[in-house]
Amino acid sequence: MRQVYLDNQSNTRVSERVLNAMMPYFREYYGNPQSMYSLGAKSKDAIELARQQAAELIGVTDADIYFTSSGSESNNLAIKGAAEACRQKGKHIVVSEIEHFSVLNAVKRLVQQQGFEMTVLPVDKNGMVSLDAVREALRSDTVLVSIQHANTEIGAVQPIEEIAKAVREKGILFHTDAVCAAGVIPVDARKIGADLITFAGSEFYGPKGAAALYIKKGVRIVPQIDGGIQENGRRAGTENVPAIVGFGAACAIAVSEMTANAVKMRRLRDRLIAELPRKIEHIYLNGHPELRLPGNVNFSVEFVEGEGMFLLLDQKGILVSSGSACANKALKMSHVLSAIKIDAAIGQGSILMTLSKYNTDDDIDYVLAEFPPIVKKLRDLSPLYSYFLKTGKRQAAGPGTDYAHEHEHGHDTTS
Amino acid sequence: MRQVYLDNQSNTRVSERVLNAMMPYFREYYGNPQSMYSLGAKSKDAIELARQQAAELIGVTDADIYFTSSGSESNNLAIKGAAEACRQKGKHIVVSEIEHFSVLNAVKRLVQQQGFEMTVLPVDKNGMVSLDAVREALRSDTVLVSIQHANTEIGAVQPIEEIAKAVREKGILFHTDAVCAAGVIPVDARKIGADLITFAGSEFYGPKGAAALYIKKGVRIVPQIDGGIQENGRRAGTENVPAIVGFGAACAIAVSEMTANAVKMRRLRDRLIAELPRKIEHIYLNGHPELRLPGNVNFSVEFVEGEGMFLLLDQKGILVSSGSACANKALKMSHVLSAIKIDAAIGQGSILMTLSKYNTDDDIDYVLAEFPPIVKKLRDLSPLYSYFLKTGKRQAAGPGTDYAHEHEHGHDTTS
Repeated sequence: MRQVYLDNQSNTRVSERVLNAMMPYFREYYGNPQSMYSLGAKSKDAIELARQQAAELIGVTDADIYFTSSGSESNNLAIKGAAEACRQKGKHIVVSEIEHFSVLNAVKRLVQQQGFEMTVLPVDKNGMVSLDAVREALRSDTVLVSIQHANTEIGAVQPIEEIAKAVREKGILFHTDAVCAAGVIPVDARKIGADLITFAGSEFYGPKGAAALYIKKGVRIVPQIDGGIQENGRRAGTENVPAIVGFGAACAIAVSEMTANAVKMRRLRDRLIAELPRKIEHIYLNGHPELRLPGNVNFSVEFVEGEGMFLLLDQKGILVSSGSACANKALKMSHVLSAIKIDAAIGQGSILMTLSKYNTDDDIDYVLAEFPPIVKKLRDLSPLYSYFLKTGKRQAAGPGTDYAHEHEHGHDTTS
Repeated sequence: MRQVYLDNQSNTRVSERVLNAMMPYFREYYGNPQSMYSLGAKSKDAIELARQQAAELIGVTDADIYFTSSGSESNNLAIKGAAEACRQKGKHIVVSEIEHFSVLNAVKRLVQQQGFEMTVLPVDKNGMVSLDAVREALRSDTVLVSIQHANTEIGAVQPIEEIAKAVREKGILFHTDAVCAAGVIPVDARKIGADLITFAGSEFYGPKGAAALYIKKGVRIVPQIDGGIQENGRRAGTENVPAIVGFGAACAIAVSEMTANAVKMRRLRDRLIAELPRKIEHIYLNGHPELRLPGNVNFSVEFVEGEGMFLLLDQKGILVSSGSACANKALKMSHVLSAIKIDAAIGQGSILMTLSKYNTDDDIDYVLAEFPPIVKKLRDLSPLYSYFLKTGKRQAAGPGTDYAHEHEHGHDTTS
């Protein structure tokens, strides 16, 4: 059976070139990079090459790149590390409502454990953070602002340079979680002017097990994994050499291929965004119509539940997601869809398709052929849908909810 | 040129069987384990198999195994996580002087950042922690004791069951860093009775990038990497599926092979320990003569500096270490050798050879042939050695140091 993998925000397949770069570091060059003998130097050199490759991807100097094990770890290091280093100055942190859980929950931990305060900025119906809201949230005791570059679920790309500028003008540290952006769209640390940037290779054909945090020279960070002298004393633990080598290789490939990949993915994405609503009534695009990641397609499909769609699509070999993989199991509407105020009844039928460079027009044709009958099948079983067909009205989701009115913010591409 | 790799405490070569188990999870089964589709279930099943394999290695239930990225991360999670969860009860932690830096520095961080107090227990000349000293160190506000199972540098294996019993009798949490022990010698969590056990596959032919923390059911832990729901909410971040699969495979192989490997390594180790002193005068074995890891050989070689030995051995393809790879670069005597009160002048000439299952009698023959001429060459250049040859006396290392007397604690196998 055909397999169409459309869950690339949650993980991309490691490219063969990346794997080939990694393999010798399992088998032949297994020396500890901190060792003095020649086999160790081989590992050390490989790590330093990867550091240069990662630095080049975001336009910084390699000395400011620190390797970690995942984007979540980098976000924790950035937020807890910077906050703990600044806590004499103040204990207030600003984030947006649609940050990844590794940002939101890291800040919540500081609130619970160390008496910090957090301000959570709302986003508009397209998932955009308002520059004015950022400015208003800044206080004399604000020590850190963390706003993501692009959103994993709805693909919204923030006006990150302007936000960073507003924050840094006040002498406040600015962190951006660029996990979904770096390697996919241009992320230029100098243009952004961020103090801290998280990025990871698992979004652009690199392996799991390695990610990076850019820490601008002079920014103080309290390490979160204490121990040995690795990563200049800022992140202890024997270096995961093969994964770091693979991450570096993925960064180097991204530098040369990213633009072409984005053009291709955008074209395929736009086919889905344009053609699905022609084949399926009552579906609504979530996220910004233009300022969105090249591979991101997120629709709410009315009168069906997400779970049914996933299962039937899976049976056809089409692998999609409901949103952040970190919270998938809960099966309730994600915090991101709640933040853009998707009505709960519609949000339950949300489906996230994220493309990679491996996807083809044939994949899109297959989805366009297989997905509409699945929705039809599920709607045929839906009492809500039959009520709608009979009465032309939507059933209220709960007392006091003016359902039909509530989702006005959505882009009802069927109307 | 022949290569004899004797730095297995710092990293072992990944076994082919382990690599073969990992490969499909890079190429074919790259689905996110938190995803609902079948490709995700494949990853999820692989992680749960690895969890069972890891649990079996130390004789616990798989529900109590939590995966992390490294032994250092596990140690940080155990210590900071348990201490933060208990801080209402008390803020005193007990460790030994020869713990790994990821234990020592994690506790120091709690002291600096959160007002904890630490007691550092000394060890005897063989690196052994005294049970009485543990008992005496316990206070009414002690919340955690962390004593390693075996030492990475001198190979000393602690009487861990008795220590754990003494600690847990007082209702205090007991953690053991078993990174150097698990997979190499039997580590039975039920016999030990520990609340928290750190172990990692990089010591027994598993890949870097995955390690484990055993957290006994009911033990509270504050997560150190916050974010998604992975690892039952105790360690966020997309699972490094290939590394976890490799770690599990290494655990399973260790269960069946460990005993035979230890017999072989012990025999090769004992050849080095017996035969090197017959060929090189004035060398002293560090660590306990019997209670030591099967692959551990640690000698202090008088009248030479470590660096010269490493470089000349490296030129002959013999790869050794000076101690913990996490601190190698410093080139000063390690905290472990300081703790067993090796005289600084002798400690500078320390050399650590750690064996693996891959080593052979031929390797040992090669070391026994190549190492003595290297020591002779270096001693011929040493003014300290020529002074000794002329006068029969050792030059004092510094004012007030009775050098010859000071190293009486060593096992002068030449006398």
